[in-house]
Amino acid sequence: MSRIVSLEVSDVRFPTSRQLDGSDAMNPDPDYSTAYVVLRTDDGPDGHGFAFTIGRGNDVQCAAISLLTSQVVGRDVDALCSALGEFSRELSADSQLRWLGPEKGVVHMAAGAVVNAAWDLAAKRAGKPLWQLLAEMPPEQLVDLVDWRYLGDALTRQEALELLRGAEPGRAERIRQLHRAGYPAYTTTPGWLGYDDAKLARLCRQAVLDGYDLIKLKVGGDVEHDVRRLAIAREAVGSDVRIAIDANQRWDVDEAIRWLERLAPFDPWWIEEPTSPDDVLGHAAIRRAVTPMRVATGEHVHNRVMFKQLLQAGAIDVLQLDATRVAGINENVAVLLLAAKFGVPVCPHAGGVGLCELVQHLSMFDYVAVSGSMDGRAIEHVDHLHEHFVDPVRMTSNRYLPPWKPGMSAEIRHDSRLRFQYPGGAAWEVAS
Amino acid sequence: MSRIVSLEVSDVRFPTSRQLDGSDAMNPDPDYSTAYVVLRTDDGPDGHGFAFTIGRGNDVQCAAISLLTSQVVGRDVDALCSALGEFSRELSADSQLRWLGPEKGVVHMAAGAVVNAAWDLAAKRAGKPLWQLLAEMPPEQLVDLVDWRYLGDALTRQEALELLRGAEPGRAERIRQLHRAGYPAYTTTPGWLGYDDAKLARLCRQAVLDGYDLIKLKVGGDVEHDVRRLAIAREAVGSDVRIAIDANQRWDVDEAIRWLERLAPFDPWWIEEPTSPDDVLGHAAIRRAVTPMRVATGEHVHNRVMFKQLLQAGAIDVLQLDATRVAGINENVAVLLLAAKFGVPVCPHAGGVGLCELVQHLSMFDYVAVSGSMDGRAIEHVDHLHEHFVDPVRMTSNRYLPPWKPGMSAEIRHDSRLRFQYPGGAAWEVAS
Repeated sequence: MSRIVSLEVSDVRFPTSRQLDGSDAMNPDPDYSTAYVVLRTDDGPDGHGFAFTIGRGNDVQCAAISLLTSQVVGRDVDALCSALGEFSRELSADSQLRWLGPEKGVVHMAAGAVVNAAWDLAAKRAGKPLWQLLAEMPPEQLVDLVDWRYLGDALTRQEALELLRGAEPGRAERIRQLHRAGYPAYTTTPGWLGYDDAKLARLCRQAVLDGYDLIKLKVGGDVEHDVRRLAIAREAVGSDVRIAIDANQRWDVDEAIRWLERLAPFDPWWIEEPTSPDDVLGHAAIRRAVTPMRVATGEHVHNRVMFKQLLQAGAIDVLQLDATRVAGINENVAVLLLAAKFGVPVCPHAGGVGLCELVQHLSMFDYVAVSGSMDGRAIEHVDHLHEHFVDPVRMTSNRYLPPWKPGMSAEIRHDSRLRFQYPGGAAWEVAS
Repeated sequence: MSRIVSLEVSDVRFPTSRQLDGSDAMNPDPDYSTAYVVLRTDDGPDGHGFAFTIGRGNDVQCAAISLLTSQVVGRDVDALCSALGEFSRELSADSQLRWLGPEKGVVHMAAGAVVNAAWDLAAKRAGKPLWQLLAEMPPEQLVDLVDWRYLGDALTRQEALELLRGAEPGRAERIRQLHRAGYPAYTTTPGWLGYDDAKLARLCRQAVLDGYDLIKLKVGGDVEHDVRRLAIAREAVGSDVRIAIDANQRWDVDEAIRWLERLAPFDPWWIEEPTSPDDVLGHAAIRRAVTPMRVATGEHVHNRVMFKQLLQAGAIDVLQLDATRVAGINENVAVLLLAAKFGVPVCPHAGGVGLCELVQHLSMFDYVAVSGSMDGRAIEHVDHLHEHFVDPVRMTSNRYLPPWKPGMSAEIRHDSRLRFQYPGGAAWEVAS
């Protein structure tokens, strides 16, 4: 019998702010970081997971993960891996820790990191990449993964079961299709606010050469600046390539509507995070005003209850789930089911460090077993920091190829973890 | 010139779970705790504040507060106290820390604890209790306290200014009225779920003898149990005393509506936290279904954007702000202004440890300078742990008397802080 013998947490930060990679209107100088967790077992592979943060506070995120140690260490691995729904509900149910959220912020992301590490472990033990492990589960098992509390007025367990059963017939063919052609991606690489106009134009042209038909630009700092950059980008990519824009929560509702009137002539495909991620009604009002421009959000949407409302209120055209903001794979299964019920495509947030690696599993699972479709869907791709992963994303021009190694691709190379350990790692010693 | 010389944080926990004080359907065994902060100055009074938690994780809350040290230490005290709006916006604006919320959970409560400590300091230096300091500020200064981002579609700075100016004429008379008659309270002391029926009946009768005309009972564990307890309480208090009920987020939307049908015959005054505090649309649906029963929420509502939506959606009849859930006094000034705009009475959440001490300042400020009314309003009162405060609440039968000592009544006695220090204090050594 195998047991979890330890839960190890480490603070791993990449000094990305030195190059202004990842700079946007709300986050001028992120240091992409992970509060990294390893579930060690006594006889087999370990489970790896993390919460993604952008620097300061990553130590507090690590401390929050450590609080879950006693709920994990000592567990029987087989029992854990065969009841991940129950496990994830238990992790979120500690009433004293729940008070610090509830189901949001640091404690919720801590649960997500540990839940994801358990899934990495489960997939490694099953000898399958996570997307495939999920995609081959019977509908009855999949609905058991979800915490149904607070969802009943939008989606019941029974409705989810029917939805999953409806998608069962084509599963095998869709798995073959994934292996043949991969999953569509879009790129944010050209569009960071900290890049100058020449770099913007060059990276836009390169994105087209790479075969992308959807790119994304950061906006929201200064409207004249945005108009100029969008003109440069539109000129560089031509009229057939879609340009999404991302304001990173900078605007009030009325301000968003006025600002977007100025940008509309450049035909943005979607406006992402126009205002506070908490503002369901605000997103709905913006959407009504800017249609046919699409409204997208999700990377800061903290749990299934908020996604439920965004869908109920008709507030979004594109749902951008995040792999580490919510309580892990289980809550994201709920989000995928909600999106399918409301017919809203999921285009996951990625970039940062390791988010591309994680979300590809969710999108591929969604394609095979939930929505059954790639229409209107694409996974964000940013070409940063993949070299630190044991099983990095594999791209063919503009598409993600399905991971084939067992696990959820969360594992950061051991040497990278040592080098970027904060504050003691070599990468940080050089800086100070 | 006086400066902030240190930000000291301590983990202070009271072992309240031993008596089941504070037990409810979601929180069976809270240990009321504070992540306690002292802003030390080099020449005068210090500022005290805290985030309230219910036990585990209070250390993580303390760590989050410590992250703000460099933003506070070294500041000129006079400059700080005369620009608390700017200070509070700066504390919430660190982009790397913001990622861990944003504006929610542990990092947001950390900002609240420090902001409140700064207000305690400002009030002490002004030689006034906080409610009076606020109540005597000109409207132009009050609106400068608020972070207006994300509020414009519900309340503009100009509308708030007009609202505050409209309430100026009666200020002096209302201050006199407060001194004469205090501010109404309601009591939750009888209604904890962990109490047996005899204790419930006895405490209900005592509440009536104490002059309360509104008491609150916890519900949501078991419907038959709730029916029995409500019958006992109604019998004990008679038909003229109002009974509010509190489900502490236990229900789905449809479940809440069904459950409340069973409890309606006992004429509950409000139903508090019927479902997830994040579920604006859910609260609105419940309210439509249970009217004329009132719907109340707020103690877990994490910021002004959520309160804005609860009001915009017509989801609540009673707004229950919390002193330490949001980013401190400044964000609560925004919440009071929003409530006044929408004509919704504020009945603050209190109890726990020190929450009564803090929220009385907000309600009294609201009465004098914002809503100008006590109608339909009452501050929660729970008779626990006041003995640990330097300036505890003063009650006359069923009303709060206005604090008169300088500060915001947040200071816990030094001996209590030592005794209940976790885990090293004497109170915890005995337990282990």
